[in-house]
Amino acid sequence: MRRKEFEVSDPEECRRLLEEKSDGVLAFAGPDGWPRCVPINYVYANGAVYFHGSKQGEKMDGLALDARVEFVVYEAHAFIPSYFSDPYLACPATVYFKSVRVRGRMAQVEDSAEKAAALAALLARMQPEGGHAPIDAADPRYAPSLRGVAVLRLDPDTITGKFKFGQNLSEAKRERLIERLEERNGPLDAATVEQIRLRAP
Amino acid sequence: MRRKEFEVSDPEECRRLLEEKSDGVLAFAGPDGWPRCVPINYVYANGAVYFHGSKQGEKMDGLALDARVEFVVYEAHAFIPSYFSDPYLACPATVYFKSVRVRGRMAQVEDSAEKAAALAALLARMQPEGGHAPIDAADPRYAPSLRGVAVLRLDPDTITGKFKFGQNLSEAKRERLIERLEERNGPLDAATVEQIRLRAP
Repeated sequence: MRRKEFEVSDPEECRRLLEEKSDGVLAFAGPDGWPRCVPINYVYANGAVYFHGSKQGEKMDGLALDARVEFVVYEAHAFIPSYFSDPYLACPATVYFKSVRVRGRMAQVEDSAEKAAALAALLARMQPEGGHAPIDAADPRYAPSLRGVAVLRLDPDTITGKFKFGQNLSEAKRERLIERLEERNGPLDAATVEQIRLRAP
Repeated sequence: MRRKEFEVSDPEECRRLLEEKSDGVLAFAGPDGWPRCVPINYVYANGAVYFHGSKQGEKMDGLALDARVEFVVYEAHAFIPSYFSDPYLACPATVYFKSVRVRGRMAQVEDSAEKAAALAALLARMQPEGGHAPIDAADPRYAPSLRGVAVLRLDPDTITGKFKFGQNLSEAKRERLIERLEERNGPLDAATVEQIRLRAP
């Protein structure tokens, strides 16, 4: 069951994760009707999620038949071992995380100026230091590549977040967990403690 | 197009990635027929992928209607900026990666011994240091939790890998790329160079 206490209703928070990350997984139905999930780089710009890829293959074939997709971005945080809260049972073991799911229909971008703008935004996300000529549909050195590549736009119908950081814990249990994480002091622990404090009900 | 030179046909290599990682994304059709993708922890054991979760919710509702799934595990390696190989065009920018996709039908594990064994394998993957009583269907302290949790088993019909590490480059371009990565010396670069050398045709 999608536990309500981990759901994030603040669209700003979901947007922030979409802006911070650069890869996720796209789910769609393949041409044979089986579900597909494909890891993919993306950029979130102007309220849409943009992808690029080949004009041929199962992704394009599947989307031509059924444009409905879900796209998920996931960020793993600290692993919480069971013995942080229970000396006997393994059950409390869990991973804290952030995830955002975007649902909508995928459209192929045909307009060359929008294609160029999407690819420029994608590259600015991946290669912010620049080091290339501006991606411009009017630049003859870019024109063949722009014609050859597919750019896809996902206009979100819904954006939902699930951020799991112990929001279900009592204050005493939360403080005890924070102590344990601070003692362990692993690479993800300080950021996780910050999220736990931020999201305490 | 799924470029043939990046496909990994060695099942041993795919298995190794499935054994190394502990999270991936599961795609399935939701009860409304829309695709879903859900980040999830897993363990690969005895040739199957095991998951656990709530007995209620959209995952269980969707799988009850259509058990076909695809599960993907992804590992990002170095980002290759365009200017490593082209002083002008942005096009060569790319990310190297490993991914493995598992396709098959999902079954709910009902046998309490298999459930306990799957959960024990999952926990051994996440919490190898132990620190809990063995998960045992005969232990009365575990019995209620074991009854309450859903354990799902994905028996693979196919396991396919895509490992992108410049297998399409000429020897001269590959050596130049390795030089650039060694100069940059970012956190992912040494491991990426190792993969490039390993996979050179």
